[in-house]
Amino acid sequence: MPKRKDKITSDIGWSTADRIQVHGLDLPSEILGHVNLGDMAFMQVTGRKPTEQESVVFNAIAVTLVEHGITPSAMVARLTYMGAPESLQAAVAAGLCGLGSVFVGSMEGASRMLYAALPPDQAGKGADLAAIAKQTVADHRAARQIVSGLGHPVHKPVDPRTPRLFQIAADNGLSRDYIALMQLIQQEAESASGKVLPINATGAIGAICCEFGFPQEIIRGFGVMARAIGLVGHILEETRNPIAFELWQRAEEEILETSGPGSQ
Amino acid sequence: MPKRKDKITSDIGWSTADRIQVHGLDLPSEILGHVNLGDMAFMQVTGRKPTEQESVVFNAIAVTLVEHGITPSAMVARLTYMGAPESLQAAVAAGLCGLGSVFVGSMEGASRMLYAALPPDQAGKGADLAAIAKQTVADHRAARQIVSGLGHPVHKPVDPRTPRLFQIAADNGLSRDYIALMQLIQQEAESASGKVLPINATGAIGAICCEFGFPQEIIRGFGVMARAIGLVGHILEETRNPIAFELWQRAEEEILETSGPGSQ
Amino acid sequence: MPKRKDKITSDIGWSTADRIQVHGLDLPSEILGHVNLGDMAFMQVTGRKPTEQESVVFNAIAVTLVEHGITPSAMVARLTYMGAPESLQAAVAAGLCGLGSVFVGSMEGASRMLYAALPPDQAGKGADLAAIAKQTVADHRAARQIVSGLGHPVHKPVDPRTPRLFQIAADNGLSRDYIALMQLIQQEAESASGKVLPINATGAIGAICCEFGFPQEIIRGFGVMARAIGLVGHILEETRNPIAFELWQRAEEEILETSGPGSQ
Amino acid sequence: MPKRKDKITSDIGWSTADRIQVHGLDLPSEILGHVNLGDMAFMQVTGRKPTEQESVVFNAIAVTLVEHGITPSAMVARLTYMGAPESLQAAVAAGLCGLGSVFVGSMEGASRMLYAALPPDQAGKGADLAAIAKQTVADHRAARQIVSGLGHPVHKPVDPRTPRLFQIAADNGLSRDYIALMQLIQQEAESASGKVLPINATGAIGAICCEFGFPQEIIRGFGVMARAIGLVGHILEETRNPIAFELWQRAEEEILETSGPGSQ
Repeated sequence: MPKRKDKITSDIGWSTADRIQVHGLDLPSEILGHVNLGDMAFMQVTGRKPTEQESVVFNAIAVTLVEHGITPSAMVARLTYMGAPESLQAAVAAGLCGLGSVFVGSMEGASRMLYAALPPDQAGKGADLAAIAKQTVADHRAARQIVSGLGHPVHKPVDPRTPRLFQIAADNGLSRDYIALMQLIQQEAESASGKVLPINATGAIGAICCEFGFPQEIIRGFGVMARAIGLVGHILEETRNPIAFELWQRAEEEILETSGPGSQ
Repeated sequence: MPKRKDKITSDIGWSTADRIQVHGLDLPSEILGHVNLGDMAFMQVTGRKPTEQESVVFNAIAVTLVEHGITPSAMVARLTYMGAPESLQAAVAAGLCGLGSVFVGSMEGASRMLYAALPPDQAGKGADLAAIAKQTVADHRAARQIVSGLGHPVHKPVDPRTPRLFQIAADNGLSRDYIALMQLIQQEAESASGKVLPINATGAIGAICCEFGFPQEIIRGFGVMARAIGLVGHILEETRNPIAFELWQRAEEEILETSGPGSQ
Repeated sequence: MPKRKDKITSDIGWSTADRIQVHGLDLPSEILGHVNLGDMAFMQVTGRKPTEQESVVFNAIAVTLVEHGITPSAMVARLTYMGAPESLQAAVAAGLCGLGSVFVGSMEGASRMLYAALPPDQAGKGADLAAIAKQTVADHRAARQIVSGLGHPVHKPVDPRTPRLFQIAADNGLSRDYIALMQLIQQEAESASGKVLPINATGAIGAICCEFGFPQEIIRGFGVMARAIGLVGHILEETRNPIAFELWQRAEEEILETSGPGSQ
Repeated sequence: MPKRKDKITSDIGWSTADRIQVHGLDLPSEILGHVNLGDMAFMQVTGRKPTEQESVVFNAIAVTLVEHGITPSAMVARLTYMGAPESLQAAVAAGLCGLGSVFVGSMEGASRMLYAALPPDQAGKGADLAAIAKQTVADHRAARQIVSGLGHPVHKPVDPRTPRLFQIAADNGLSRDYIALMQLIQQEAESASGKVLPINATGAIGAICCEFGFPQEIIRGFGVMARAIGLVGHILEETRNPIAFELWQRAEEEILETSGPGSQ
């Protein structure tokens, strides 16, 4: 438990009658019109504006995470909205609740693995990345753990987002030890297992997050914020082309058929 | 209830082994690196990329909604994270659940009022905006309803975000009938009531959303997506400078004092 | 907005080193072992223990609301749990988010209608219930509104829960003006519309809630608390017999087929 | 990932035009009026009605978990309701999101520890409980882990709920190896650490859950369902005696004072 404190404080921002300050900047005059939404997300996490290059790379990873079709979280948002159309916010919230260890958590897992293999204070100092990759894969195999960020049920042999994200990072000076290490880990994992194990988008993003030096406990948050955007789009489509009712009726009918009175 | 359908469909996107398409564009090559996060949010709602001018204005309104200090939703996210630090996504979700009719709903309320007063098919055709404003205020006063988007407990006589947002809209060709109408409604409401009633940020954003022609049922969604970004920042600060525990202990102690054994 | 207050207070309960008091009773010695979970729910809403008869009726309505098969909220809980199995609480929370105006809200709607037609201070005083029912149905028809609590897509001509709940209420002295009024409204609605319109379970429960005199703004809460119990059962079944993955894969495949590359 | 399946199935229940079956029983005639809400919760988890003795014990543990004053989850529900009073369900959902590893998770932790120390198939067969307790405490001390279910910031030297719950379990034939083991672990932990470490309510409930043989992955669910009931009570009180606004204003003012313009 945290300690008691005399006074609570926050460095994020404050407002008075005529001023609103966020991260040390005047919101109306220094932020609005000067930064895009991805830059603002960057500021929320780092407390500073991104450089132009950081902005391009960070926006690319955030944009990647917005949308990926009819995911479970999109189904959840649509099913929830059907029951409570007066609460769009709760439908988005419900959809976010499932962004846990199984899906978006793999992004965090990739970052944790990379930070553990190459602590931030050793990055960029000529570590033997090939040896680290070999050891990392060997450790995972000994512990019978899967390597976070590798493999994809649909996108093989390559997840098409990964080379593009790595290219954008390289074009903007953000491809350094962690992306190289992730690539070496992938090669090692493929040769050790004999399986096709592409670096998936969450693995690529996890590696880029390490290049940025983002704290690992917040990395899942990028997936959460981006998906909130995606879910608003699904809810809008649901108002025009509803599918939740159909999904529900089919499930109910099928269970009546398999598990109902006639089934026994 | 919606009708049953033979097949469910979605226009948002799909993916195959080597392709991911979103809103008719190839995600890796046509979206990543080409649009920022705000543009992607615009695409989720309109199905198309914004123009350069639309991008500036839309990003400005989205950025405005990200952060406003220790709001109830920020307190909720922090208190939730204290109990379930393994579920960052659920802390964000909890924080979003309160973005309902009282706070973010006022943005939707302003848009609904403006669309009702000046239906989209009559905008830009020389309607008598002053007369519409007069009627709108008179109707609200007769029904004893407050005018959505006017007034602010802290920011008076001017909400500093409003003139800046209207300036950005004007600079980018998006200040037309709805912003003019909002301003006329404000003047009319002030003179009718004798009170200081600034157009607050949600009123300004509601008017700009009408200039964009966004459907009113999705407008609350911009507040929800932007606040998801803001809440991730609050959770990160909570990991470093926790305040939730202090807020809880104080509440518990005060209720023990006012309502506990010694109080009766 | 509420007024500021010097001190916050709460009448629900407090605890000291050796005592825990809830609703004026000592939790360990006066509540535990003496009341069941439904009685405790009754206490949370009324601040007092139910009588024996109230206990039977209240538990019956709460039990009714626990489970109704593969509802959208059950699907949501299961889909959420698939992504975040470490957060059972968030899966339940997501499932609850959809208990809004469309489904559980109809219970609240029935109570609101009955309280509006026969205000609590006029109940039990010989009002002309048949005339009130006639007027209520006529008003709904004139406004082209459906009558809350009538009709069911599956359960016709009778919702089997309704006669049983009304019987339990009658057996325990809780069948008075509001249940009678609900039945008269149903007869009137059927004869006016020529349709089969059974009192559904939410209509029956709404009427019984009026017999109890529960405040209308909390009635939806009974559905929420009961469904939380139901959802825990669905999540447990999902751990043993998962269906969420199958529901997701089918939706994704169907949308790929109807809306993907081959469909255009 | 789970395997694909031809058909989805569920053993929880189904409904046809004139029947509703839950856990193999006819809901109207065999459940309503015959079981209380706690029994229904028991059925959701076990698939069968409890015996009379099981009913008393299970209801007692569920009732214990309903209410404990102004907890973080109660604060969250109240703050959320202030912003979205139209969505009572979302306020409850938000409050549940924080019932994670820190608070309610300790109940699950105690059960996991007890099941690991004494696997279900060895319970009741004369295991040397004192030796197991010694080993368990030694293992926790070696790993520098706290023992789940011991210690309480307020309730010392005894959590008043624990002896009462253990008494109810004993009176109903449900005090066997696991409660005895929990008590031995507590004694061992106190003597090894020299600290006062009462078995807290979640420790007591975790032990009783093991006596019932409940699967450990669902135990947190009892806390979630019970708290849903408690939160409805807090929301009702918030409608009558609002405290959320005051909590928010104080936090905002304090941060303005400590971290705002005058503070630097």
